[in-house]
Amino acid sequence: MAGDGSDQRALQYEQTLMYGRYTQELGVYAKEEAARLRESGQRRSVSDRSRTLDLLEYDKGRCAKCRICTVRCQKFLISRVGEDWIFLILLGLLMALVSWVVDFCIAICLQAQKWMYGGLDSNVFLQYLAWVTYPVVLITFSAGFTQILAPQAVGSGIPEMKTILRGVVLKEYLTFKTFVAKVIGLTCALGSGMPLGKEGPFVHIASLCAALLSKFMSLFGGIYENESRNIEMLAAACAVGVGCCFAAPIGGVLFSIEVTSTFFAVRNYWRGFFAATFSAFIFRVLAVWNRDEETITALFKTRFRLDFPFDLQELPAFAVIGIASGFGGALFVYLNRLIVQFMRKQKVINKFLMKKRLLYPALVTLVLSTLTFPPGFGQFMAGKLTQKEALVTLLDNRTWAKQGIAEEFDYIGNAQAWRHPQVNVFVTLVLFIVMKFWMSALAITIPVPSGAFMPVFVIGAAFGRLVGESMAAWFPDGINTDGTIYPIVPGGYAVVGAAALSGAVTHTVSTAVIVFELTGQISHILPVMIAVILANAVAQSLQPSLYDSIIRIKKLPYLPELGWGHHEKYNIRVEDIMVRDVRYITLNCCYRDLHNVLLTGQLKTLALVESAESMILLGSIERAQLQSLLSQQLGRARRLQYIRERAVEEKKRLSIVSDPASDDNGSQRTSQEVRFQISTEESSFSPTRPVPHKPLKPALKRPSVVERPTELPTSPHDHSGIALKNLFCSSPDTEALEDDGDVEDDMTIREIAEWEERQLDEQVNFNNCKIDPAPFQLVERTSLHKTHTIFSLLGLDHAYVTSIGRLIGVVSLKELRKAIEGSVTVKGVKVRPPLASFRDSGTSSSENETTELHKLWDRHKSMSLPRESTPSESEEKSQ
Amino acid sequence: MAGDGSDQRALQYEQTLMYGRYTQELGVYAKEEAARLRESGQRRSVSDRSRTLDLLEYDKGRCAKCRICTVRCQKFLISRVGEDWIFLILLGLLMALVSWVVDFCIAICLQAQKWMYGGLDSNVFLQYLAWVTYPVVLITFSAGFTQILAPQAVGSGIPEMKTILRGVVLKEYLTFKTFVAKVIGLTCALGSGMPLGKEGPFVHIASLCAALLSKFMSLFGGIYENESRNIEMLAAACAVGVGCCFAAPIGGVLFSIEVTSTFFAVRNYWRGFFAATFSAFIFRVLAVWNRDEETITALFKTRFRLDFPFDLQELPAFAVIGIASGFGGALFVYLNRLIVQFMRKQKVINKFLMKKRLLYPALVTLVLSTLTFPPGFGQFMAGKLTQKEALVTLLDNRTWAKQGIAEEFDYIGNAQAWRHPQVNVFVTLVLFIVMKFWMSALAITIPVPSGAFMPVFVIGAAFGRLVGESMAAWFPDGINTDGTIYPIVPGGYAVVGAAALSGAVTHTVSTAVIVFELTGQISHILPVMIAVILANAVAQSLQPSLYDSIIRIKKLPYLPELGWGHHEKYNIRVEDIMVRDVRYITLNCCYRDLHNVLLTGQLKTLALVESAESMILLGSIERAQLQSLLSQQLGRARRLQYIRERAVEEKKRLSIVSDPASDDNGSQRTSQEVRFQISTEESSFSPTRPVPHKPLKPALKRPSVVERPTELPTSPHDHSGIALKNLFCSSPDTEALEDDGDVEDDMTIREIAEWEERQLDEQVNFNNCKIDPAPFQLVERTSLHKTHTIFSLLGLDHAYVTSIGRLIGVVSLKELRKAIEGSVTVKGVKVRPPLASFRDSGTSSSENETTELHKLWDRHKSMSLPRESTPSESEEKSQ
Repeated sequence: MAGDGSDQRALQYEQTLMYGRYTQELGVYAKEEAARLRESGQRRSVSDRSRTLDLLEYDKGRCAKCRICTVRCQKFLISRVGEDWIFLILLGLLMALVSWVVDFCIAICLQAQKWMYGGLDSNVFLQYLAWVTYPVVLITFSAGFTQILAPQAVGSGIPEMKTILRGVVLKEYLTFKTFVAKVIGLTCALGSGMPLGKEGPFVHIASLCAALLSKFMSLFGGIYENESRNIEMLAAACAVGVGCCFAAPIGGVLFSIEVTSTFFAVRNYWRGFFAATFSAFIFRVLAVWNRDEETITALFKTRFRLDFPFDLQELPAFAVIGIASGFGGALFVYLNRLIVQFMRKQKVINKFLMKKRLLYPALVTLVLSTLTFPPGFGQFMAGKLTQKEALVTLLDNRTWAKQGIAEEFDYIGNAQAWRHPQVNVFVTLVLFIVMKFWMSALAITIPVPSGAFMPVFVIGAAFGRLVGESMAAWFPDGINTDGTIYPIVPGGYAVVGAAALSGAVTHTVSTAVIVFELTGQISHILPVMIAVILANAVAQSLQPSLYDSIIRIKKLPYLPELGWGHHEKYNIRVEDIMVRDVRYITLNCCYRDLHNVLLTGQLKTLALVESAESMILLGSIERAQLQSLLSQQLGRARRLQYIRERAVEEKKRLSIVSDPASDDNGSQRTSQEVRFQISTEESSFSPTRPVPHKPLKPALKRPSVVERPTELPTSPHDHSGIALKNLFCSSPDTEALEDDGDVEDDMTIREIAEWEERQLDEQVNFNNCKIDPAPFQLVERTSLHKTHTIFSLLGLDHAYVTSIGRLIGVVSLKELRKAIEGSVTVKGVKVRPPLASFRDSGTSSSENETTELHKLWDRHKSMSLPRESTPSESEEKSQ
Repeated sequence: MAGDGSDQRALQYEQTLMYGRYTQELGVYAKEEAARLRESGQRRSVSDRSRTLDLLEYDKGRCAKCRICTVRCQKFLISRVGEDWIFLILLGLLMALVSWVVDFCIAICLQAQKWMYGGLDSNVFLQYLAWVTYPVVLITFSAGFTQILAPQAVGSGIPEMKTILRGVVLKEYLTFKTFVAKVIGLTCALGSGMPLGKEGPFVHIASLCAALLSKFMSLFGGIYENESRNIEMLAAACAVGVGCCFAAPIGGVLFSIEVTSTFFAVRNYWRGFFAATFSAFIFRVLAVWNRDEETITALFKTRFRLDFPFDLQELPAFAVIGIASGFGGALFVYLNRLIVQFMRKQKVINKFLMKKRLLYPALVTLVLSTLTFPPGFGQFMAGKLTQKEALVTLLDNRTWAKQGIAEEFDYIGNAQAWRHPQVNVFVTLVLFIVMKFWMSALAITIPVPSGAFMPVFVIGAAFGRLVGESMAAWFPDGINTDGTIYPIVPGGYAVVGAAALSGAVTHTVSTAVIVFELTGQISHILPVMIAVILANAVAQSLQPSLYDSIIRIKKLPYLPELGWGHHEKYNIRVEDIMVRDVRYITLNCCYRDLHNVLLTGQLKTLALVESAESMILLGSIERAQLQSLLSQQLGRARRLQYIRERAVEEKKRLSIVSDPASDDNGSQRTSQEVRFQISTEESSFSPTRPVPHKPLKPALKRPSVVERPTELPTSPHDHSGIALKNLFCSSPDTEALEDDGDVEDDMTIREIAEWEERQLDEQVNFNNCKIDPAPFQLVERTSLHKTHTIFSLLGLDHAYVTSIGRLIGVVSLKELRKAIEGSVTVKGVKVRPPLASFRDSGTSSSENETTELHKLWDRHKSMSLPRESTPSESEEKSQ
């Protein structure tokens, strides 16, 4: 929880854009851009015409027409280049290429390891050294490279994308550096042969691609570069990521929706399908062109019989796979979190590892590769197979175990790895499952770019195969009793197991579709669907999904989902969770109030109310806006102006005799004049240009400012002045210096402090402040369930709680998250929020509430109560 | 557009529930219910215990324990019966049964027709009579039955479900009567052999099932019977409908999402999958149990080769299918609309058909079945095949035409129908496509429960087959040049064509998934995806989807989607489309104002502002609430009380000498007293109990009231009194009669009118009125695009437009729809809203707007301007 605040502070600039007045900025921007483009277009067409005329004069006759054509085509292309479908095609193409190149490099890396291992078969020790050193070097390089270039590239990327698509801005997550680090790091990590996946990272890489491409395309003059389009494109990119990773367009779209979205706009559906299909198509075409394949087929093609895929009586076995996978998936998530938490808690280890960051990856890799060493323990768990080979053999058409006797079957190719002279194939499978299970959970904690989908998928396939082989051994002639003998197909069980376990770990149903697209066969659709749904039901009731678990571990600012059994949510209201002590500013406040409010609060926006008595909510103002207002009021430019005016006044005083009694009054009038002067000058001076966004972060990062007590006005004046300087040591000071070189800043520090004090007592002029006049409002009776829906639908950061126009509280994501996590913890222990229990006593009814509300209402009409007493009184009433 | 108003009036009571104060009602309801249940639970457990004690005493020893067990199980089951998954299982089971029974009946009907036709082969005329009479009778029966029982059952049902899921309440759409009419009507309609589908109606039937089941389940004490859960369940039901119709769970879920939703909550995803999978499973299991199938397989199983499904060089042909299907789909939608509009415009035909409602179905059926008569024209278009048979033959594995010579191929079974001794198979296919195309477009206009998906699917398959056969004739040895010969598989083309055309007509991508699930093969995934996406791209740019087209034809209250090229939407603002003349009531208005406002406006809710000068929006009040306020103020109970008080006063006046000059003042005070008296009595008198919902509809249905001019106060008093009586002739009058039997109502009509006039001048007491203190607000600069997003995300009916807390306009669905349809018409002609052009002149910039806003703001501070001038002034500024 500690890390949340700083993240939240930086987040969701976009979110507020959805509502209220800021939307205007976008419109204005688009309009200005359009006007600019139109003008420049005219200019361009003029210059084009002149250029073509030049051309015509220059080399008449020959290729002038051709050139005109080219210019026109170019113009046309540039004008169309901003369109969505071109963007999506480019994205798909790029990602297919990246995916193919990454796959190619991984294959080379793995071949190199095999070749080294195979070449050294004379000496087991050398063989072991080669087997172990190779992945250790690769993983260490990957970890180091990522650490140095872009630490954001570590891990899967799906949790981060989920957070970004929620509207949170994560810094440095979508930069070119991260792209390079992720692609190279991923290639090395997967080339090492560790049980890691490429799906999650590819979602991130595709999003990176989309972000970079969109930046690149905006060079060609995209008018509509707004945040909602970017979010749409990122969602499509996630689909592309999965689609080109598995050549599974439909599954990719669905998986990315399930994993990253809360509410999905169906009108964006086609984007994902379009881009993912194109990407998958190019990805497979590249394989054909490279002569790997004869034509476009599935990645892990199976050849199960079509006429009788499975017997109805086999369904219980499939259901068992589903339920067991559900438990397995939950266990996997739990195990992964346990490992991370263990590493964090052991402070000695933690400190040591923090110092030697590359030691942990190297150590883990060493352990894991030692265990899979084929002449060693690896012989009992098909250690020499790569992930891909293992999956191909597991999905094999044929039955390995007939009546329990493994020898009968003629193992060919890679399937040989599963045979061991002394040990039954069942033992090999069980060992494979158990070992790979914890190895995968451990491997994905290595700080390299890597996912967990593929390892889990393989484990699931192995588990399915185990059940399938058992069934085949149990019913050697199949179950069907009348007529034809249809032997059991263990490969089908493997397909079901793979879909079920990966579905359980990720909490998705669309793994079913991915499995069909991966294998190219859909005949097992009903068993797969049943198993996946059962696995989801079990896993979702036990643990969060792997991605949600990582979100919690990483403490990303994300709103958790309401669980399946969210009925008790109807009983919690906004009034139970809202913060009653809202930071607000009034319409007639002075700069000192502004200053105090800015020093204490943390929320990104502040409420603007009519007055402290009425508390009628008028709108919200961004913190940065207020800071710019304040810095403008206390800035050097202002002070220099003051000095200039003082000098003029001084002159006046020298020329005519002044009345010292009216001095105070006069300065008051002067400042008033100055205020209006400033307000007319502003448009050229532009306080809103660079200031609004910049000064926030340094001010907040300085702990001394944040920890300052709220009783600042009682502290010495000098101190305050310096504090203000610290707080707003931003550009206007230095900018102003150049303009006002003619005036000498001859004020002493004491004078400055006094001047600042005076400035602070002035009333705030909100003229140049962007006010959002319709921030989102809730009422105190809104249920938690509805609040959650509204927050996730609209991607809100906070909402004000009003009672008939009066501001009575504020709810931010933090409170909502706390309320949800407080009432439904992961372990199933349900903690009720403190106030909920009072209501359950059942004395308050709707009548009661109506009258209560109307009391509030009457009070509002009389407008005589102080603002603090109202919520507390209503609280007492409700109890 | 004319029919919209009345629909809209009745709609979206639920929508307002999402926000503001009404949410409380739900919470309160849930809480009360919970308390009640807890109490009754305690009571029940006590009674259970006593019952079990009785049992123990009654027949000790024997089966007492058994009975206790039963009772406990029963209790447990009842307590769990409200849970979602049980509901979904029941729904799935029910729908699978319905689907299977309907299929079974249809099969019997079709067999009967064949049998009749086959038995009469001695006489062609008799054969023709049998061939024609049978469908005519069935269709006429279906049309008549539906017409009589529930006219709502006519048609597909998907457009209606789309509207309902948007939050609109369509009357009588989810009743048992409609269910019966739809099921029986559909069975007869499809049994006739007309080119009609069952998909759309099944979506409706499933929704009906869900609605009825949910009513049934609520008998067992479901606590959370709220509207959002119902919407979730309806969405799941739509998935079940498609899923059990085609045994396609995944495709069903996706199709139903694409067709019915705008924004989809991913957390409801599992519901659809769960129910659809279960339903599809049961549906196929029933087939196995009925010995139709050996095991669970796809509905239209194909057996294409797996190793080399298609060549890369065939892809252009698939793309051609996609593009052509796109045009075909658009043409189909256009043709369908053209037929409907033609029938409507021809007033003579229209009148005639309105009188003889069954004539049109009979005539159309006669024409269509005459054309398909096998010995007649039907022989050239495989007329004797039913839809299902045609599809099976079209998806056939084998190639029909080798090198253009049709005879070479050995036609067996139904495929024989495609062969004609004189005519090439290509001609047959072309004739089939052309004839079925217009026949289907015509057939779906028959007023029976029927869909268009399946006919379109078959036409698409035929078109694909045609292209496939052409390719096979063109490249008899396949295209692949190196090594093995892989002949072209025309069946694969049929699959692609079916998916593409149905995707184009419905504007969905998920037909691809449906096709895979229907055929049980996914090997053609990339061609199918490419064709479907291309078809969608073409069709969406030409025509709305069939369902949207029907929505427009039926004038259902639905918000249209923004088109693909919705960029110009960024340029339209709320201020261009909002209604500036908002009906509002002020906090201190008198009942007369209320009365006037109620007589003029149509919106379901009215804005409550602080005062006409400040226009600060305080909340919104439902129309019905105001009506109950008014009826209470003028009701008989109130009048009787007045009479009683007058009698008391009379007595007082008789005893002491009264001053006639203070009479007016006195009555004022009395009414004040009465007002407070009422407000304490109210809780027992309950004006909110039956009144709020009832009186709305009769009042609105009476056209005389709505059409009354606004200058009512100038009309004679009697008239007003009677008008008011007409308007509020609701229950309180008659209720009150019984209570106040002791007081004589001796007032004359003139006295009553006077009394009413006096009552109307009193200030409104909003004490017992439910006020929504946070209605949704937009600002005038919000873009149309954002407004559309917000409206469809939140399912809003209307939103107020505010400027810094001041109400300046209102936008309802109607305005939004007009704006969208006005700017993007179907024919591609883009009409700009009147004000948008002014902004393009490019003179106004962000500065300008800021100052303008602040002018408004300053005005607000001074609070001296009349309310009307503000918007118009700001309008002038913006121009």
